[in-house]
Amino acid sequence: MEHQTSEPTATQQAAETLDGWYTLHDFRRIDWSRLKQVETTVRTKMINEFQTFLAELGQVEEQKEGSHALYTIIGQKADLVLMVLRPTMEDIQAVEVKMQKLDLYDYLIPTYSYVSVVELGTYRGSGEGNPYENPYVRDRLYPILPKSKHICFYPMSKSRRDGDNWYTLSMEKRKELMYRHGMIGRSYAGKIQQIIGGSTGFDDWEWGVTLFANDILQFKKIVYEMRFDEVSAKYGEFGEFFIGNRLESSELETHFAL
Amino acid sequence: MEHQTSEPTATQQAAETLDGWYTLHDFRRIDWSRLKQVETTVRTKMINEFQTFLAELGQVEEQKEGSHALYTIIGQKADLVLMVLRPTMEDIQAVEVKMQKLDLYDYLIPTYSYVSVVELGTYRGSGEGNPYENPYVRDRLYPILPKSKHICFYPMSKSRRDGDNWYTLSMEKRKELMYRHGMIGRSYAGKIQQIIGGSTGFDDWEWGVTLFANDILQFKKIVYEMRFDEVSAKYGEFGEFFIGNRLESSELETHFAL
Amino acid sequence: MEHQTSEPTATQQAAETLDGWYTLHDFRRIDWSRLKQVETTVRTKMINEFQTFLAELGQVEEQKEGSHALYTIIGQKADLVLMVLRPTMEDIQAVEVKMQKLDLYDYLIPTYSYVSVVELGTYRGSGEGNPYENPYVRDRLYPILPKSKHICFYPMSKSRRDGDNWYTLSMEKRKELMYRHGMIGRSYAGKIQQIIGGSTGFDDWEWGVTLFANDILQFKKIVYEMRFDEVSAKYGEFGEFFIGNRLESSELETHFAL
Amino acid sequence: MEHQTSEPTATQQAAETLDGWYTLHDFRRIDWSRLKQVETTVRTKMINEFQTFLAELGQVEEQKEGSHALYTIIGQKADLVLMVLRPTMEDIQAVEVKMQKLDLYDYLIPTYSYVSVVELGTYRGSGEGNPYENPYVRDRLYPILPKSKHICFYPMSKSRRDGDNWYTLSMEKRKELMYRHGMIGRSYAGKIQQIIGGSTGFDDWEWGVTLFANDILQFKKIVYEMRFDEVSAKYGEFGEFFIGNRLESSELETHFAL
Amino acid sequence: MEHQTSEPTATQQAAETLDGWYTLHDFRRIDWSRLKQVETTVRTKMINEFQTFLAELGQVEEQKEGSHALYTIIGQKADLVLMVLRPTMEDIQAVEVKMQKLDLYDYLIPTYSYVSVVELGTYRGSGEGNPYENPYVRDRLYPILPKSKHICFYPMSKSRRDGDNWYTLSMEKRKELMYRHGMIGRSYAGKIQQIIGGSTGFDDWEWGVTLFANDILQFKKIVYEMRFDEVSAKYGEFGEFFIGNRLESSELETHFAL
Repeated sequence: MEHQTSEPTATQQAAETLDGWYTLHDFRRIDWSRLKQVETTVRTKMINEFQTFLAELGQVEEQKEGSHALYTIIGQKADLVLMVLRPTMEDIQAVEVKMQKLDLYDYLIPTYSYVSVVELGTYRGSGEGNPYENPYVRDRLYPILPKSKHICFYPMSKSRRDGDNWYTLSMEKRKELMYRHGMIGRSYAGKIQQIIGGSTGFDDWEWGVTLFANDILQFKKIVYEMRFDEVSAKYGEFGEFFIGNRLESSELETHFAL
Repeated sequence: MEHQTSEPTATQQAAETLDGWYTLHDFRRIDWSRLKQVETTVRTKMINEFQTFLAELGQVEEQKEGSHALYTIIGQKADLVLMVLRPTMEDIQAVEVKMQKLDLYDYLIPTYSYVSVVELGTYRGSGEGNPYENPYVRDRLYPILPKSKHICFYPMSKSRRDGDNWYTLSMEKRKELMYRHGMIGRSYAGKIQQIIGGSTGFDDWEWGVTLFANDILQFKKIVYEMRFDEVSAKYGEFGEFFIGNRLESSELETHFAL
Repeated sequence: MEHQTSEPTATQQAAETLDGWYTLHDFRRIDWSRLKQVETTVRTKMINEFQTFLAELGQVEEQKEGSHALYTIIGQKADLVLMVLRPTMEDIQAVEVKMQKLDLYDYLIPTYSYVSVVELGTYRGSGEGNPYENPYVRDRLYPILPKSKHICFYPMSKSRRDGDNWYTLSMEKRKELMYRHGMIGRSYAGKIQQIIGGSTGFDDWEWGVTLFANDILQFKKIVYEMRFDEVSAKYGEFGEFFIGNRLESSELETHFAL
Repeated sequence: MEHQTSEPTATQQAAETLDGWYTLHDFRRIDWSRLKQVETTVRTKMINEFQTFLAELGQVEEQKEGSHALYTIIGQKADLVLMVLRPTMEDIQAVEVKMQKLDLYDYLIPTYSYVSVVELGTYRGSGEGNPYENPYVRDRLYPILPKSKHICFYPMSKSRRDGDNWYTLSMEKRKELMYRHGMIGRSYAGKIQQIIGGSTGFDDWEWGVTLFANDILQFKKIVYEMRFDEVSAKYGEFGEFFIGNRLESSELETHFAL
Repeated sequence: MEHQTSEPTATQQAAETLDGWYTLHDFRRIDWSRLKQVETTVRTKMINEFQTFLAELGQVEEQKEGSHALYTIIGQKADLVLMVLRPTMEDIQAVEVKMQKLDLYDYLIPTYSYVSVVELGTYRGSGEGNPYENPYVRDRLYPILPKSKHICFYPMSKSRRDGDNWYTLSMEKRKELMYRHGMIGRSYAGKIQQIIGGSTGFDDWEWGVTLFANDILQFKKIVYEMRFDEVSAKYGEFGEFFIGNRLESSELETHFAL
């Protein structure tokens, strides 16, 4: 490959990404039927143990060594989601195993999970110098999750169907399309905060998108509006959508009270 | 973007919507096998507790702060559906959690659910002034559900397949298609009442359609007829269909009697 | 719409249908493992209760107010199917609830069901006068199911794929195609009896097809032969296939004997 | 239709088939967790009862009134498959019900099944005279299954996608394609024995293919090689693949020993 | 077929493969809820029994008669994967049955498995002489699995869609495409070790890919980069992705400690 051919290689086509904290979304349904059979004192003890666990996660977050968020999920797909960000996959696993060993988790049935790593695309370029030392970039790669009232999560991939194949488009075309796509996103600044998790090779879709907002209707507005943008209209393939409300650790006794 | 280009942006393409009450459809199967093992007095107490819960929902409805409907579902997909409308997603969650804590719900197995918000499309324009102050619009955004004998629910999306991609059609073309589509709907006025729940970003399909009728055959007639209309024929993608009969709170003892 | 345009409306495109009795197919697997733990006398009592229920269905059939059929199903999809036809969906529900309350049904696990209404297409025209008063039509809309040795059931829809879209064909084209399709069906007269259940808007497919025959091989022959007919070859989309053998009420003790 | 048109009817297009014994493939997973709780003497009794059942199937086979084969399945899809061939579907059902009533089957969880009838295509013609009296044909329609070391089973259909639609090809084209396809099969003579079960109208795919071989690698070689043949490359749609090792009745005690 | 036509046969089109050890991937979820009810001494005994089993697998590996690897899996798809390579499918089954009989496995719920055989494609030619005697080839066909920190597994097939049909491409075209594809793989030498399991005819996809790396991010990088390569972009169809961390036998007590 001594000279640059006109046809770029896959390596040249692939936009470089910046990768931050590893991420686990863990969705669970509350097994109310069995939980109701547990004595109140035992149930309180289980909830306290879970609150202690959440407090430990909170300490990690205070030290900026990770972040997490606990939300309810509306409808039957799940009742709760715990989203956890950590510097290594070993850390993620440690949290996952510790969580599974909690007494309360005997009554929290797994319904869905997603594994990814916080990702920044570089279609717009990542500025000068080592981007991993850029404070703005670092804040986005190693984010402390907002305390917004609502969460929305969905996994997605880019289409590789004959006719609408994202991966055979040129870098320029994709850059242009992503620029316009990003513009819609920007128009929601202040209303929606977005965490993109890259998951090609990690989970079944290519990205896991997490949105945070205080006005839950903004989730519908942005996803609907983007659907008319060529990136989504022609190339977007979407998995399940989950939405819910923030659940404070201090609200757990009430939430589980019978 | 100093001057308007001839190609409209996604933002311009997206029809604005009016959004009303948040909506949960909760489908459940009765676990008859386990329910039969419950003593009659305990079972009666459970049903009474459920009736009290329904009466509370009824009070909210009387105050026009929400609405709900309880129907049976025919076939094995579910035995019951409770549809609940509320001003906020926090309200929806409160109803959902309260419901799950009812003793009867230990015997009502979740089989499907749908999360949406009552939506009015604005292809036909929403009239002058603030539509949210228009009484006609308000009645449709914050509807008190009819007491019809039958319910039909199905989720649907618009196709984004290469060749039949709704989201790459022009606004004019979509407006024209929706006008014709709406005309069919209007011809069922008096026979069918329809609630459209927008669910892009909220659940797995883009809309959840709920139909009410006193003549159950009208559900088949309208869905079949519309299938020949271009909107459905080329762009309609449909999920599962559920139909059932109205179940009054006062009928519950008989319905659950063994 | 003062003058007839050259392009027919969806309403004009939709072939009118004649609709008869509502129909439920209820497929169940026998939970042999749990059933074996039931004492013989209790098991006998359960079977007798089921036989009484079948006898009641038989009385309805004698009065020509409905019909039903009980067959085994071969393979693991189900062990039994009960097909019930009734004048209203409330009647269907009443049978379904009564059935679920039978003791034996605690050991019959739901595996599949289908909801439809007996339907006659009118591509060939329905003759003069009110078709619902035509005795030949009535016999087909309100059929007493045959006592054939074998049953075959499958749901199906017409394709709406780009390229092979049934719903964008002209009425004439569909009429012509259905005529040829019907000719194949007619060549099986005397060998196969067919009940078409329309289920657009009622269940997940557009039709549920039930075939009855004394020679089970005829099911394979007709479905295979029709697959070469354009209606199936290009426009037919099929769900699961179920086949089985007639099970008389008097054979139940033997069938369930351990 | 007084004169023969140039376009053949579906009836003329459909290749006639010769149909032999009805066939059930019954795949089960061993519920080791529950089986371990059974006392050794009871477990031995259960295995002996199963061996007696297999001996009865063996007697039917000796009388050439049917055949059967018992194999393990590798991986989690199943642990065992019992394949049974019989002259009528009533015979198949009798075997199935008897099997389900065996004590051991309370610990063999159903995971997949397939219903078909041994089928010979007649693309190559079936020779002169009544083919059902031709000894060579009879041996293939009513086969005694080989005692090969390994089994491979998979269901398949012919594609009806727009562009690659098997059922709209002419009889001559299909004949030519099947001839070349058959040539590959012939090159495996002596290495692989194949039983084709026709299942159009009987089960969810159009055919169930069972391969027997002493060298398990031959399964991979033939399926891979055929994938490049037009019949598979363009028209083949495949379901799940199952492979396993022969399990003799005399090995059962060891296989189930704890 | 007296003379060689210009169109190559399927047999000539099919690239020959070299086949090595048979492989089972066995994914399991830990049933923590039930495991917590087991007394500590019993649980310890179960873990010790599992460690003894792993030690036996280790002895086989030392004698180069097979290999294995135990990893955790992140997320809810599974908690553990045991990958086992052996010279025959009978050996694989013996390991599988022995594993299922371990006490610990009553608490390890099967969630996914994959059956394949280590495969080397020969698009680049396999050199002179009997490749099975070539030490380099032997090391790749009968690999001792690396002790890398991380594992990634996914099954995949080549597309046979109209428009993007791998199996109708010429041998030369496929050779050229695979060469470029392989070049990307080579650029990850030293970072990723790859085992390709051929599974056409053995399991539901055509290949099972296992990647090993000390830097888990490399999995995302290679799969993402390859997605822009024509082989994946147009012809790659992917199943589920699983990733996890190495779990040493000596870590099991801690991993399962409560």
